[in-house]
Amino acid sequence: MATSTGRDLADPSFRAGVVELCGALAYGELVGFFMIVHDAETAPRLSDRIALARLAAHELEQYERLSGRVTELGGDPETAMAPFTEGFDDWHRRTPAGSWLEGLMKVYAGHTLATDFYREISAYVDPETKALVEEVLHDTGHLDFAERTLREAISQDPAAGGRLALYGRRLIGEALSQAQRVAAERDAITNLLVDDGSGNGADLAELTQMFARITQAHTDRMEWLGLSA
Amino acid sequence: MATSTGRDLADPSFRAGVVELCGALAYGELVGFFMIVHDAETAPRLSDRIALARLAAHELEQYERLSGRVTELGGDPETAMAPFTEGFDDWHRRTPAGSWLEGLMKVYAGHTLATDFYREISAYVDPETKALVEEVLHDTGHLDFAERTLREAISQDPAAGGRLALYGRRLIGEALSQAQRVAAERDAITNLLVDDGSGNGADLAELTQMFARITQAHTDRMEWLGLSA
Repeated sequence: MATSTGRDLADPSFRAGVVELCGALAYGELVGFFMIVHDAETAPRLSDRIALARLAAHELEQYERLSGRVTELGGDPETAMAPFTEGFDDWHRRTPAGSWLEGLMKVYAGHTLATDFYREISAYVDPETKALVEEVLHDTGHLDFAERTLREAISQDPAAGGRLALYGRRLIGEALSQAQRVAAERDAITNLLVDDGSGNGADLAELTQMFARITQAHTDRMEWLGLSA
Repeated sequence: MATSTGRDLADPSFRAGVVELCGALAYGELVGFFMIVHDAETAPRLSDRIALARLAAHELEQYERLSGRVTELGGDPETAMAPFTEGFDDWHRRTPAGSWLEGLMKVYAGHTLATDFYREISAYVDPETKALVEEVLHDTGHLDFAERTLREAISQDPAAGGRLALYGRRLIGEALSQAQRVAAERDAITNLLVDDGSGNGADLAELTQMFARITQAHTDRMEWLGLSA
């Protein structure tokens, strides 16, 4: 099956890259599940707890789809996730949420960063994986709740807004540093994105541009929430 | 709509009892969701974390069905759950799990206690609610994982088994004490189960018998796991 970049799943290195990428995305969804439930437990209202529990269950469904794709491609989900557990877990550990609103910011920023990344990488994978990634992308309605709650809190309490802005900056900073570490360590996934000399994939400059676009999108989103990132 | 006990949803006190009962069950599922996720986070293997996350998501689905039934009956889920939040939360707080296996025991015992209770009360509700309760009951395949893991751990380490047996006893003791407190406080739900003089419902002696049967089932189950409860 040819891809938009002209590469084929019959090519073992391309297939290995797609498997790793799906593993990374799957583990991200799993971390999202636990992160959201954790935030739900500190939510002040029962209705917020329920809304967040639903959002978490939705992340788990996305996990199932992505890990299912790993299996379809002949990979093992746990093996495919293994190289990324440390990066995600470190990100999570290094950005502890100090309040329920920071937890919500983490859910929101984590989710939107993932969304931006999905959008960027969907060009480099096979058509079936691309369709799955786009399906996962499409399905962001659950975030309205986080967005609305954050906007309300920020408009009512500018001091809280200041702290949230700082926290938002740390979230993206730590995420980019983890992403860059992973990019440096993982050949299979990096080969997917970085030019292998055949003219396919992105080149290194394009990869840097990708990180810059993701950072810009995050900044815009923080401003839109009423924060200066 | 006539029930197996001859009572009808057109009877406001019967309807109020069914709404409260569904509220209690719904909140129990919600507590189960958070409890299981909490245990998942301390699971030693990634595969266990995933298995438990799936089990948790399943509890949330059951929550949705039960709270949906409250709405169908003209009730408000949050209002219907409110009288029971304290009892469940107290139970959870008073029985902190000291290890991953105790957490798994809590999941297992909590789930099976709920199952026994569901089975008992399904006789007292209207046919549609009964069908829903039986559907929820039927769906216990996810527990195999907890059961298998506990059996393995107990057969390998009898000392751990002794601690788990004590913990299991506390779980049921605290659950019964909360249930009895709720039964004493909540007229609507108690009227559903206790004879109101019309010959419908259970009488008080039967209610005590119900608690005794649930305790016995718990004891049998602990023995079956390799523990003396």
